[in-house]
Amino acid sequence: MLIALFAGDGIGPEIVAQAKRVLDALAIPGLTYEEGLVGGAAYKAVGHPLPPETLELAKRADAILFGAVGDPDCDALERHLRPEQAILGLRKHLGLFSNLRPAKVFPELANESALKPEVAAAIDLLIVRETNGDVYFGEKGFRTTADGLREGYDVMSYNEAEVRRIAHAGFQAARARRGKLCSVDKANVLETSQLWRDTVIAVSADYPDVALSHMYVDNAAMQLVRNPGQFDVIVTGNLFGDILSDQASMCVGSIGMLASATLNEGNQGLYEPIHGSAPDIAGTGKANPLATILSAAMMLRYSLNLPEQADRIEAAVAGALRGGARSADLGGAMTTVEMADAVLAAL
Amino acid sequence: MLIALFAGDGIGPEIVAQAKRVLDALAIPGLTYEEGLVGGAAYKAVGHPLPPETLELAKRADAILFGAVGDPDCDALERHLRPEQAILGLRKHLGLFSNLRPAKVFPELANESALKPEVAAAIDLLIVRETNGDVYFGEKGFRTTADGLREGYDVMSYNEAEVRRIAHAGFQAARARRGKLCSVDKANVLETSQLWRDTVIAVSADYPDVALSHMYVDNAAMQLVRNPGQFDVIVTGNLFGDILSDQASMCVGSIGMLASATLNEGNQGLYEPIHGSAPDIAGTGKANPLATILSAAMMLRYSLNLPEQADRIEAAVAGALRGGARSADLGGAMTTVEMADAVLAAL
Ligand SMILES: CC(C)[C@H](C(=O)O)[C@@H](O)C(=O)O
Ligand SMILES: CC(C)[C@H](C(=O)O)[C@@H](O)C(=O)O
Repeated sequence: MLIALFAGDGIGPEIVAQAKRVLDALAIPGLTYEEGLVGGAAYKAVGHPLPPETLELAKRADAILFGAVGDPDCDALERHLRPEQAILGLRKHLGLFSNLRPAKVFPELANESALKPEVAAAIDLLIVRETNGDVYFGEKGFRTTADGLREGYDVMSYNEAEVRRIAHAGFQAARARRGKLCSVDKANVLETSQLWRDTVIAVSADYPDVALSHMYVDNAAMQLVRNPGQFDVIVTGNLFGDILSDQASMCVGSIGMLASATLNEGNQGLYEPIHGSAPDIAGTGKANPLATILSAAMMLRYSLNLPEQADRIEAAVAGALRGGARSADLGGAMTTVEMADAVLAAL
Repeated sequence: MLIALFAGDGIGPEIVAQAKRVLDALAIPGLTYEEGLVGGAAYKAVGHPLPPETLELAKRADAILFGAVGDPDCDALERHLRPEQAILGLRKHLGLFSNLRPAKVFPELANESALKPEVAAAIDLLIVRETNGDVYFGEKGFRTTADGLREGYDVMSYNEAEVRRIAHAGFQAARARRGKLCSVDKANVLETSQLWRDTVIAVSADYPDVALSHMYVDNAAMQLVRNPGQFDVIVTGNLFGDILSDQASMCVGSIGMLASATLNEGNQGLYEPIHGSAPDIAGTGKANPLATILSAAMMLRYSLNLPEQADRIEAAVAGALRGGARSADLGGAMTTVEMADAVLAAL
């Protein structure tokens, strides 16, 4: 089985290297790795954030372990050359439409959250975010208004097939968890959301065992602060999912702990920490590698069908935390390598 | 000076009545009031959420004191007949583009927030939200894709004139406060945001005394949980402002405390609590009227140029809280009327 390693920018190479050490320690037979260039690093080396060889490798691979992209040096480039296009392009070209972002507090870290410990400790939710459509991929550009003014525009849209497949992903995830699905939209203002809501309701007929509710996105942002423990699975579109999942991650404490998987219809997947490339701490050895290590665990579970190995990694991360392993974002002083050492010791 | 009273749906009539009592107690000479129908109440009475007489009254008034709109009975109506169209229509027809949503914790309530008290106590921010453009007011509808699928769409856009005037509002607010402005967008994905960011930077040349920063909306949602005390003024578009201001309100504790003003270029304004119509508690006498009373204070300050009277109301609300006044949302048992009584006693 082939794993593509796309380390990317900033802290990406440091954290992916540590996740690779953990994977190596499991000595899983038949795993092979190939590295590829993405993001600002790829642009600087070969002039494009998602070079053809990288895309070709991604298509061949069974799974992609992704670091992070984003490089302030590239902010002034034309949009199609910016680092972010690597992740957006991979999601689109590989049909990676179902982005799973679990948020759960490790008991040792309940105090790290800005939320009261009793509020934070109750969090155990999964955000299922659509990542192939919405205002991310609609027609966009600049035009001149009738009054001669420069205007920027982006078309938001969803069709029923796009909503149906992510709704199924949401209902199935809810069925495998506590049986509650909350669909988040802005149907009181947006027709895209009205189509979303109508379609989710239609799909719900197939899942009589799942309790479906609907929430406007502004209220959801509020409820994620007030009482995040009320949520089991949240299913939502690309833009709202981007905002709410980052918000939820911080409710959990550090964003340095949150893993994600993005799957296509063939269960090929891209696995990445939800944090970014953190250019401010790149090269200092301070980055927390746990989100990437936990992303590797998700990869074993979802794309490689190795749930016991995934469990081993997750248990080792919990063990390392119980043993006191803390990087800077968790209020400690351990380096990227020392954090991985602690996980390896607990494995 | 003429004040239009638009009570609306759900708890709207109860809370507006209490704010009116507080205004009456100030015995301000020359104030007159006229009531108008809006929202589901207007639809049920005359068949439209924003009847022509209401709009005509709104245009004549110096200020509008607004309760809330939203009625589950109306969810299945065509979009142009739904209660929300009242507030959207007023914002649009009166050119009310600058929505000011201050969030600050009353010391007595720092414990009500789901955030740790020390995190909540540091909050003192103002969200300046654009409310005349964005994906709220672009072309929208349903269409059929080439594959025969039903699709919903909404066009997001901003032109430079729209961004310029809200940017000026943001910079001026920052200048009158702590001199920090954070502009929130999603320029790594959206051209609307790129135009927004370019324009805000251009306007910043007029405000060398204000420190401008930029933040992506996903990061902003995260930072509002992690460390909301870092923000002074946030300026953002209609959709992101909707989400972030509701989130910020909950960081403060109860949404029952947050007031807002929406101004046009003539400083005519609409004043409303940021909470909704709360149909679940309508008629029970449990609603917290303080956000509406504080909205009336903002009205005196911004549209009627009576800052001392505004200060008096705000001091009386603080006094009532210090004296222990607590409605259900604040963990107490006082009714809507008793909360207003406490404010009147402190006045
Ligand atoms: C880098 C950016 C384009 C991306 C997104 O908005 O999807 C990121 O924020 C994410 O959530 O994966
Ligand atoms: C009722 C709704 C249309 C409105 C909005 O989204 O603007 C509300 O949420 C608000 O924030 O005032």
